[in-house]
Amino acid sequence: MTPDRSQRKSEAPGARAFKLTVEYDGTRYAGWQRQSNALTVQQALEEALQQLLRHPVRCPGAGRTDAGVHALGQVARVVTALRTIDAQGIRRGANAFLPDDVRVVSAQPCALGFDPRRDARLRWYRYSVFNRSTASALDRHRLWHVPQPLDWPAVERALPFFQGRHDFRAFRVAACSAKRTVLNLVKAECAAPPEGAPHVRHFDFECRSFLHSQIRLMVGLLVEIGLGRHPPEAVRDMLESGRQTAQFRMAPPNGLVLMRVDYPSAGSRAEKER
Amino acid sequence: MTPDRSQRKSEAPGARAFKLTVEYDGTRYAGWQRQSNALTVQQALEEALQQLLRHPVRCPGAGRTDAGVHALGQVARVVTALRTIDAQGIRRGANAFLPDDVRVVSAQPCALGFDPRRDARLRWYRYSVFNRSTASALDRHRLWHVPQPLDWPAVERALPFFQGRHDFRAFRVAACSAKRTVLNLVKAECAAPPEGAPHVRHFDFECRSFLHSQIRLMVGLLVEIGLGRHPPEAVRDMLESGRQTAQFRMAPPNGLVLMRVDYPSAGSRAEKER
Repeated sequence: MTPDRSQRKSEAPGARAFKLTVEYDGTRYAGWQRQSNALTVQQALEEALQQLLRHPVRCPGAGRTDAGVHALGQVARVVTALRTIDAQGIRRGANAFLPDDVRVVSAQPCALGFDPRRDARLRWYRYSVFNRSTASALDRHRLWHVPQPLDWPAVERALPFFQGRHDFRAFRVAACSAKRTVLNLVKAECAAPPEGAPHVRHFDFECRSFLHSQIRLMVGLLVEIGLGRHPPEAVRDMLESGRQTAQFRMAPPNGLVLMRVDYPSAGSRAEKER
Repeated sequence: MTPDRSQRKSEAPGARAFKLTVEYDGTRYAGWQRQSNALTVQQALEEALQQLLRHPVRCPGAGRTDAGVHALGQVARVVTALRTIDAQGIRRGANAFLPDDVRVVSAQPCALGFDPRRDARLRWYRYSVFNRSTASALDRHRLWHVPQPLDWPAVERALPFFQGRHDFRAFRVAACSAKRTVLNLVKAECAAPPEGAPHVRHFDFECRSFLHSQIRLMVGLLVEIGLGRHPPEAVRDMLESGRQTAQFRMAPPNGLVLMRVDYPSAGSRAEKER
């Protein structure tokens, strides 16, 4: 994040930083991260904050969600030297300028050195599958429709293979630039259908960080296992071999939500290593 | 429903009827009921079925949902003399021609005389309020955002006044053409927030039929009570006087969903009176 560090060095005296929690419907956006040729959530947020604060801003975020992926708890940081605004004013003011598919849910003062991406200790993503012959009309933007009946016990046998420390290099796309592919997945679970929604299944994954498209690839394989095209052990085999030994398609982006990003309570760099 | 009856009389020999359960996101539509100058869900459904069946169709529905109101379980009927299609073909074929915000969830053979509106024994509507200072980005199309903190115990004290047999003439809009305003509301409940959604509250109402905009008016008053502007007894007073004695605004349409319509199992007219 070199540009951020130099930006912070040149900040006006009296600059203050705010940690923003951001919710968005990713349907209209080419992902979180700013791009030169497509509308992104980061750009929408920065433009709203610029209108509010009347100076250029950059808002680094915790997770570079893909095009079409949603967030209930993306985290971003904004720095301003404007003295006439507090955290509540930032939240309300940003929401006044933002389109209604992006909301700043909370703003809190934070350390100027707070780095949403590097300081994150845990990321929680939820992937939701809608398993009914007919797709959902009302929630179609946030559920992956799988029309064929799935063998959920087989999916539930496969999931625990993901849990724990593994080399996930078979579960990333070619564009992934991560140097480390060994990650400790602290949660890989699929709860029973929520009350009143018998066709919905949520997959919850928690890890300090994820590889590019890792969750959509993991869910893609789990659904193929549910379709009976691979045994549950295909997960273990791919993790052990590090190669894509089973054929499957990546799950679409619309089922994925960045639910929450956790930080060490003190916000210090040392703590994040725990 | 005179046009339907005459239509049925003139039906070709071999005509068969199907009961359709229809789910829709009402955001784009001017309600269920066909209109000459605005797109409605009924029109979208009829046009899809006409493309499939290659003859004109009319699809009467159980509930005339307002513009912006959604359904998970609207019920409609279609009649065809086409012999080459079964119920599954109707469902799949309709969905192939429908836009993705309308889905035929099921199709079942039914009596030619089945009248979705008159034969209905019970309608279940759910109204969902989102009570957080910041609106929902992801579910904004299906939640009424109320930013001020609500006194939920007061709302819960007010709700039971609606339950049972009352004259609801104070809870309908001027456009309402119903002759009978005495209804037996068999359910008026507000459950605890669903797991993982602490800001969402669902109001569930069940009755054989409702007056025009009745639920949006009832929820509008309940929210005013939650804001402390009226006591819970304002509900009782309005039901007893039959006049709008308390000032309140009608709840917006996007929080309302027609969840289910129940029919007598035998489908006979006699049974619906129970």
